[in-house]
Amino acid sequence: MAMAVGARPIKAPGWSGGAHTDLALVDCDVHQTVSKPEALLPYLGRVYRQQATEQGIRFPGSGYFNVANDAARTDLAENCDAPSHDGRQMGTTYERLRDQHLDLWNVDKVLLTGASTYGASILPDPDFAAALCRAFNDWTIEQWLEKDDRLMMALSISTTDPQLAVAEIERLGPDPRVRAVMLPTGNRMPYGNRFYHPIWEACERHGLVVGIHPGNEGAGMAGSPTGVGYPTYYIETRMARPQMAMAHAVSFIAEGVFEKYPGLKVLIDECDQFWAVGLMWHMDADWKSLRDQTPWVKRLPSEYFRAHIRVGSQPMLEPENSAQFFTMLDAMHAEETLVFSSDWPHWDWDDPATTFPKLPERLHRRVFCENARELFGL
Amino acid sequence: MAMAVGARPIKAPGWSGGAHTDLALVDCDVHQTVSKPEALLPYLGRVYRQQATEQGIRFPGSGYFNVANDAARTDLAENCDAPSHDGRQMGTTYERLRDQHLDLWNVDKVLLTGASTYGASILPDPDFAAALCRAFNDWTIEQWLEKDDRLMMALSISTTDPQLAVAEIERLGPDPRVRAVMLPTGNRMPYGNRFYHPIWEACERHGLVVGIHPGNEGAGMAGSPTGVGYPTYYIETRMARPQMAMAHAVSFIAEGVFEKYPGLKVLIDECDQFWAVGLMWHMDADWKSLRDQTPWVKRLPSEYFRAHIRVGSQPMLEPENSAQFFTMLDAMHAEETLVFSSDWPHWDWDDPATTFPKLPERLHRRVFCENARELFGL
Repeated sequence: MAMAVGARPIKAPGWSGGAHTDLALVDCDVHQTVSKPEALLPYLGRVYRQQATEQGIRFPGSGYFNVANDAARTDLAENCDAPSHDGRQMGTTYERLRDQHLDLWNVDKVLLTGASTYGASILPDPDFAAALCRAFNDWTIEQWLEKDDRLMMALSISTTDPQLAVAEIERLGPDPRVRAVMLPTGNRMPYGNRFYHPIWEACERHGLVVGIHPGNEGAGMAGSPTGVGYPTYYIETRMARPQMAMAHAVSFIAEGVFEKYPGLKVLIDECDQFWAVGLMWHMDADWKSLRDQTPWVKRLPSEYFRAHIRVGSQPMLEPENSAQFFTMLDAMHAEETLVFSSDWPHWDWDDPATTFPKLPERLHRRVFCENARELFGL
Repeated sequence: MAMAVGARPIKAPGWSGGAHTDLALVDCDVHQTVSKPEALLPYLGRVYRQQATEQGIRFPGSGYFNVANDAARTDLAENCDAPSHDGRQMGTTYERLRDQHLDLWNVDKVLLTGASTYGASILPDPDFAAALCRAFNDWTIEQWLEKDDRLMMALSISTTDPQLAVAEIERLGPDPRVRAVMLPTGNRMPYGNRFYHPIWEACERHGLVVGIHPGNEGAGMAGSPTGVGYPTYYIETRMARPQMAMAHAVSFIAEGVFEKYPGLKVLIDECDQFWAVGLMWHMDADWKSLRDQTPWVKRLPSEYFRAHIRVGSQPMLEPENSAQFFTMLDAMHAEETLVFSSDWPHWDWDDPATTFPKLPERLHRRVFCENARELFGL
């Protein structure tokens, strides 16, 4: 929902953006991004800096169109009058986030979820991938974290070499401003696979949430973005997001990750929400018949989901009527599982005031604040 | 739901299996299967018969376990006391279907959806794949269709060479007992892709429904069964079914298949149902913003879905309460989109009496009879 620069928050049902003393509004998906990958050059070592200077930074691409202005809201895009894509490359700045989001909507805490280095998890060279993640993390700390207490950071890591991901978690995980790691939906294997377990062990040990966000769909080593191969158009890759969310959620549960790391929490952003409903029902029914094949899954799959997986609210689906909407919230146990995410600054972002109909007071507090407070230990 | 051999239908809410004069119960997923692929040898030509005699018929496998007795109900499996898998290979017979399903539940019409040759669509050799489909179709006509007027047939075809699939449709499509073609969910590309359009053209011309049913998940050329690669356990491949259903449904709509072939209808069996709800909401919202990228999609995606796609009821998901169940039926427009499917004879089949709670009279008629009557032109 685009908003004119400088507009004040509108009056809307359920909106509680006024002055308050306690935590009231936590946003679990805000993108800090470099204007172009080469902005990371100063944060890279000599060899990679030279290679990247000579050849550019090459993330595998999918070949699908996206939307103009690198998907940013028109009022937030830099240089969006430039005649070609090259001139329009945009990043976000802390000052713009402060003025156009934090202050405007009176947001108390945001999770910086990055985006610029999601491609690191499908870069063939694990050392270069890890170097890019370190560079982006250092840039984020310098350009963002140190400027505002409202900012929390999700570490950029690459899964290409889990041990290097663990090293980056050891390096920055102790920083109390670091609250999560961030990974793309598109990857070579579902995230419950044992290949990733050293990363989850380190996340649990440092109290970091595992954040998952669309990225890499159909690009490079990630392979096809659906279980039936490569679709043709961008809108189909968007519809693949809930499919990928389902595959990762099932994988965490079926592989017993939450039995192995009982403190681990997962946040799945920007894949819509109501995929969780049918998935929980389907998993529970099948588990009752098939649990002898995965005996380490000791409880109903939906119990693991409700205890360990949180779902970002954006893009909030639009049922045909509010009765359906509230039934879906009820069926997904939104009072436990749903957290507010804006996806600022993208064109399809959700603002905190008008996206939801008026919720019952307790549910409003859970979705806009308490679920995230518990998730991040605020 | 297993049932003792010879038991009579139980009294249950919504059950109307008694004597009637008009069509009342249509079952859109019943499997006729050979006991082993080699049962098709007499229906193959000399060269393939020799090769298959010497080497067996080799469908690509996925490596995932399934369940015992080739997934059949224990009371229907042949030789289920045999000590090893080889001895237990089972097929279904017309007589068993008649006694244990058609007569028992007073079913008026069933769609024979096969299964034995779903792997033909991922066989590398298109001529052998087509020969296997022809053989299975001839076996089905001889062993099943000619024995009972209640049987309708979904043609086995392979997508490996669409022109050979068209040839099979030309050969048997004019037979009024043939009402559909049958394809597996697992394949190299989503089914809206232009590669398949000659098949859809032939289906529309002959009035055949495009049936899609789980099969080939993760096997051979079909590639990984999720958009995030290969999961580890069988239960995860079952959770991938709705994901694959979503990918195919989106593909048909985004590629404009229903604008190009306005008479085409698609039936998606055994992938659960409620994936349709979030998918319609998500597609509609995104289409409003992105429809310039697919201008041949002229109407809301959900309108194409409701007009052209039908969803088999098995396995019927199990919401926490009936209010959720009825809201989901309402949200998926079950009065248009849902058809009863039993998945006979598999262990996780749904019987027509006890799977649903008591439905309102009109909705019951739509789901158990009228939607299928319109789908197949009965």
